[in-house]
Amino acid sequence: VSTAADGAPPSGRRGRRAGGEDTRAAILACARAEFADKGYDKASMRGIARAAAVDPALVHHYFGDKEHLFVEAMHLPFDPETVLPQLLGPGIDGLGERLVRLFLRVWDEPASREPFFGMLRSAMSSERAADMLRGFVSSALLGRVAASIDLPDRQLRVSLAASQLVGMALLRYVVQVAPLTNATEDQLVLLVAPTIQRYLTA
Amino acid sequence: VSTAADGAPPSGRRGRRAGGEDTRAAILACARAEFADKGYDKASMRGIARAAAVDPALVHHYFGDKEHLFVEAMHLPFDPETVLPQLLGPGIDGLGERLVRLFLRVWDEPASREPFFGMLRSAMSSERAADMLRGFVSSALLGRVAASIDLPDRQLRVSLAASQLVGMALLRYVVQVAPLTNATEDQLVLLVAPTIQRYLTA
Repeated sequence: VSTAADGAPPSGRRGRRAGGEDTRAAILACARAEFADKGYDKASMRGIARAAAVDPALVHHYFGDKEHLFVEAMHLPFDPETVLPQLLGPGIDGLGERLVRLFLRVWDEPASREPFFGMLRSAMSSERAADMLRGFVSSALLGRVAASIDLPDRQLRVSLAASQLVGMALLRYVVQVAPLTNATEDQLVLLVAPTIQRYLTA
Repeated sequence: VSTAADGAPPSGRRGRRAGGEDTRAAILACARAEFADKGYDKASMRGIARAAAVDPALVHHYFGDKEHLFVEAMHLPFDPETVLPQLLGPGIDGLGERLVRLFLRVWDEPASREPFFGMLRSAMSSERAADMLRGFVSSALLGRVAASIDLPDRQLRVSLAASQLVGMALLRYVVQVAPLTNATEDQLVLLVAPTIQRYLTA
């Protein structure tokens, strides 16, 4: 793990660094390494600060909490903090449709699809990458949606909703099964939104 | 591509070979190479016979048709010819439940999960592997199930059913999202079978 940003003065390599763009980039590089190495749950802001040779307060100052740091380090195209209120705010009615549309829009854009797809691909060949993806998805996404529904087996129900969305994306964008690749957003919403809605509410 | 089985007499390398276990293994090796190289749809029994330096009639004699050859070459744990009648024979009632149970049983066994998982993993990093998986899944599996249902968008509906099953397997066995990994077969059937049944019938 590199602990210094490119171009940082050699004197910065021993002590703690001051702020700046190089420092920010160095923290993100160390965060990627730490998440990949330890998984999402075991990675810590403190450990990342230590690897980047900065004060933990600086990491908090730049990135807030671990979830935001992960979102930035992994180049995720949206922040759960912003998206979840849009999904959950209007209440449980239409939640299935909102989830399907959001998911399709993220995956329809190659630029926003790539980080997720990269994590999913890594998770299929590396236990650690699977651990990282699982930790983030469970803590930052599924847990929050689950907290908003009131049914037995709600963790399982939210996980199944996620499995339908991930499976749809995998066959539509990666394996490219023709009927899925050729379907419009509205066709998919018509068939898939009731599935998601039923998992989350019925 | 090697065209000779290990231990085959050197004289066999030029002309066509006679039958035997070595020949059978050589045909399977050439079939794997041809499927990987050309994808399922474009691979041909004739091309595989040529690569293995045997008469095409011998390939048909050993393996029947292209689908069976693929099943054997890829070490798939079941033959669509055997499984589909069990799924579809009893009619449309309970088809969702039969599909979920079959799928879980195949994936619960590491030995039978591995060939599918290997194909899926390859499909995520290789366009050709995606083509091979898509061709087989579309022709041998989805097409036959679709032929048995009578609804508009039936190809799309069958593909969505497949996407739910694949997504469930991916999060349960590969990413190992805890609520899915810990769920029993019956818990999953209770929640997922209605999804599959609705896609295929409602």
